[in-house]
Amino acid sequence: MPPARGDHEARRREVSEAVWQVLAARGFGGLTLRAVAAQMGATTGLLTHYFPGKRALLQHALDVLDRRSAERPRPAAEQAGQAAGLVRLRAMLLDILPLDAASAASNRIWVGSWDVALTDPELAEEHAARYRRARERMTGYVADAQRLGELPSGPAAEEIAAAAQSFVLGLVVQALFAPGEFPPERQVALLDAHLAKAATGADRGPGTPPVPAGES
Amino acid sequence: MPPARGDHEARRREVSEAVWQVLAARGFGGLTLRAVAAQMGATTGLLTHYFPGKRALLQHALDVLDRRSAERPRPAAEQAGQAAGLVRLRAMLLDILPLDAASAASNRIWVGSWDVALTDPELAEEHAARYRRARERMTGYVADAQRLGELPSGPAAEEIAAAAQSFVLGLVVQALFAPGEFPPERQVALLDAHLAKAATGADRGPGTPPVPAGES
Repeated sequence: MPPARGDHEARRREVSEAVWQVLAARGFGGLTLRAVAAQMGATTGLLTHYFPGKRALLQHALDVLDRRSAERPRPAAEQAGQAAGLVRLRAMLLDILPLDAASAASNRIWVGSWDVALTDPELAEEHAARYRRARERMTGYVADAQRLGELPSGPAAEEIAAAAQSFVLGLVVQALFAPGEFPPERQVALLDAHLAKAATGADRGPGTPPVPAGES
Repeated sequence: MPPARGDHEARRREVSEAVWQVLAARGFGGLTLRAVAAQMGATTGLLTHYFPGKRALLQHALDVLDRRSAERPRPAAEQAGQAAGLVRLRAMLLDILPLDAASAASNRIWVGSWDVALTDPELAEEHAARYRRARERMTGYVADAQRLGELPSGPAAEEIAAAAQSFVLGLVVQALFAPGEFPPERQVALLDAHLAKAATGADRGPGTPPVPAGES
């Protein structure tokens, strides 16, 4: 007899939580039906009810990662509110960095997913699309910042956004491997230095009064 | 009877080559004794002679990656020769980027190794040490560039180097996931834009005559 619907949903949440715990502790390389079953105190047989094979388990793990990422707190974006331009871009980038334990755990799983995603064309394209969407949002903020005179209008907004995204992804990796060398304050200082460099040549810096017409 | 020494060395090279092929095709998540044995057309039993367990196989894979990385061609560095400062820094960064198929394969395996390395404190520290050594070399080139007036002397050399390393690592990830969006020309253009921004505020740009004292 199949379980009642409420039980089923509760069990699915339990499975997702166990998948997350296994990913956090052992990475994608340690994600097996057996490990998830052990984490739940269940049998491997129960798990095959949810995942017919390894690929289904991986796909579920990436879905869990996606959902958790969408739901995670974004304190900098919240603080930025409806601010436009450079403030908004900075907030988005800050919320990516592993500045606290929860964000480090989530980033650690993201970085771990790259190995699996790069071996499977379909998963690779899904990841590429995720980064493309994030880059498009950043490009919008960059274009706003250019209109506001906070960033120089010479380089294409896409290139400033691609550079910022590359910088932040690489900083995530460095901070995960060497948290002692890249404490939160240094991560923020490096990001601010990157943005300050990006802003050189702009009509005006953030927070400084606009340059009168004809003087820029 | 153990194999003769020459046979043993030849077999070790064969094992290393098979490990590399498995990593390139399936990533660290697909690295198993069985997969390496199949790649060699050998039995799993033979492999256990070399690797008592999964961790020994992983450690060997990271050693192979290290050795291959040390041996890989560095065309930009060769071209830069004994040049100092910004030219040398740029060459080192260019040689990291996945600008051709061989470099993309090697980078793909590096990125794949992060999942495994982040779950094992010892492997994580080894990786952190590798990135630290690369960063120290970059810091030396940055300091030279500062002395030459190619980079501004305000920011600490360590911070300019950490930013450049972060930028390049993140660009590697983006280019691996979206090679169509990040062809070699765009990677190089993004790197050059990053270095040009880093150079703003310097006494002089690379190749431009020094600014006479008092005018900078």
